[in-house]
Amino acid sequence: MWGIIATWRMAKEGLEKSAISLEQGGTSCDAIEQAIMEVENFPYFKSVGYGGLPNEEMEVELDAAYMDGDTLDIGAVAAIKDYANPISIAKRLSKEKVNCVLVAEGAEKFAHKEGFERKNMLTDRAKIFYRKRIKEIKEQELKPYSGHDTVGMVCLDRQGKLTAATSTSGLFMKRKGRVGDSPIVGSGFYADSKVGGATATGLGEDLMKGCISYEIVRLMKDGHHPQAACEIAVNQLDKELKERRQKAGDLSVIAMNNKGEWGVATNIDGFSFAVATENEKPTVYLVKNTDGKCICEVASQEWLDNYLTVRMAPIEE
Amino acid sequence: MWGIIATWRMAKEGLEKSAISLEQGGTSCDAIEQAIMEVENFPYFKSVGYGGLPNEEMEVELDAAYMDGDTLDIGAVAAIKDYANPISIAKRLSKEKVNCVLVAEGAEKFAHKEGFERKNMLTDRAKIFYRKRIKEIKEQELKPYSGHDTVGMVCLDRQGKLTAATSTSGLFMKRKGRVGDSPIVGSGFYADSKVGGATATGLGEDLMKGCISYEIVRLMKDGHHPQAACEIAVNQLDKELKERRQKAGDLSVIAMNNKGEWGVATNIDGFSFAVATENEKPTVYLVKNTDGKCICEVASQEWLDNYLTVRMAPIEE
Repeated sequence: MWGIIATWRMAKEGLEKSAISLEQGGTSCDAIEQAIMEVENFPYFKSVGYGGLPNEEMEVELDAAYMDGDTLDIGAVAAIKDYANPISIAKRLSKEKVNCVLVAEGAEKFAHKEGFERKNMLTDRAKIFYRKRIKEIKEQELKPYSGHDTVGMVCLDRQGKLTAATSTSGLFMKRKGRVGDSPIVGSGFYADSKVGGATATGLGEDLMKGCISYEIVRLMKDGHHPQAACEIAVNQLDKELKERRQKAGDLSVIAMNNKGEWGVATNIDGFSFAVATENEKPTVYLVKNTDGKCICEVASQEWLDNYLTVRMAPIEE
Repeated sequence: MWGIIATWRMAKEGLEKSAISLEQGGTSCDAIEQAIMEVENFPYFKSVGYGGLPNEEMEVELDAAYMDGDTLDIGAVAAIKDYANPISIAKRLSKEKVNCVLVAEGAEKFAHKEGFERKNMLTDRAKIFYRKRIKEIKEQELKPYSGHDTVGMVCLDRQGKLTAATSTSGLFMKRKGRVGDSPIVGSGFYADSKVGGATATGLGEDLMKGCISYEIVRLMKDGHHPQAACEIAVNQLDKELKERRQKAGDLSVIAMNNKGEWGVATNIDGFSFAVATENEKPTVYLVKNTDGKCICEVASQEWLDNYLTVRMAPIEE
């Protein structure tokens, strides 16, 4: 069996390519990296890699992580600037004995010495969004921008190895140096080839409070199907946050176990994800949470077309 | 009931002061901060705060974290330079709505704006250790230095609030920007006032692989005594690491539940910790792991005296 599942519709094109290589026996290490690079490289996704929206100082600071479910090797970078593919740097770091999580300038120095491609990750389009937002902030009260879509994936290969990985530019207008859940093991991602893997997207500051990705893998280890594990973890954290803090931020998760069975849960409307397995061709779904049960519906062609049209629409200052 | 437990003998003096304030009804928020500041301020502890050993570029980069077990608020800084008390910055960040985890220059900018005390954290003594180490490395093969002692604490106040916190300068000679488990929620620390709290010290890259602090709190939630929770978590992670990677790094943990009961576990010889509760005056213990059971022995006066003598001994280049 092989399989790959990813947060948000933006993962579709990368996932389709990786599904082909997994079908042909490719490793989940390479397949997950390639699929995430595809998202990082596409300039119209505002929350990952090139074209990601900048922090309050108009810098694109990126976070990424990679975990090998066989060895439990972890590599991650946070608040790294001006590198084309943070996921590849994170994967490279996972091979180190120590110093596997690097941030900011230290991460950039490592990437430079290792010969990774330097790239100005701030696009003209992202600059326009930045300047528009500055205007908006001046005109109204400051509130967190809705854009915090991390691409996260879990991948299983025919050899039985599971990997998990994430990549994001984080909260738009975040404070310089801010790190969300994406590069944080257990919160943004976790993988164990003996059990399964999970990744999260949403408000990092809240996802962290429940170590949600680790919790999902643990629930699968206890015998839960990935779907049940995802729902229990999201509903539980949502409930705790509302009880203790009156409200819960966006929490969306995906998971796959080592049999290629998958699950998904969210506490918002409009969460989308993409999945492919040996038994299921690449498909994009939309998810709704109705009284704690998450219902997945295949996205219509109209919805898929509209998604890209909206994201690639011209913008004016 | 109140209680406080901390990794390593270095926490003793701070813990003794905080025990007095907890006895008098002080909050676990303040008590844990004060106890950790005491360790950060003492120049002879080479792995925390002022006097902490530098990274490979001779910079003291510090990590710290704070978690409120009532609200699940988390604040953390990583790879921050030239601030006297990283724990206070982490605690301050835990009050923010978003942007609660900041790294490197972004963390320094925030601290500056908030008026935290700037301080050159590199002592003459630390410089001597650095230069000696450079010489040693030239003369022999490079291997990770043994010094990676994080101060981590869990604190319970009479109002029933649990907090957890950590502070460290991380691995001596670490790569610039390297982040260990200490500021990573779930790995270095976790606290939930409904259950208990835990913190970890040892090889961050390995502690992370098991999200060990979250796992301990989860085991307590399942009904385990803190001692059993600590032993299960350490033995399990140690076993998984040895099975998958042939060896396991140093793993040491402490925990306290919301009744003030505590536990500790380690896979090394020579782990020490300090504890005080309403029923137990401040005491330093040494721990041994014998076939998976951890045995605590009260440290002798001779051992305590010797600890400080060794750390404060003059060093020559």
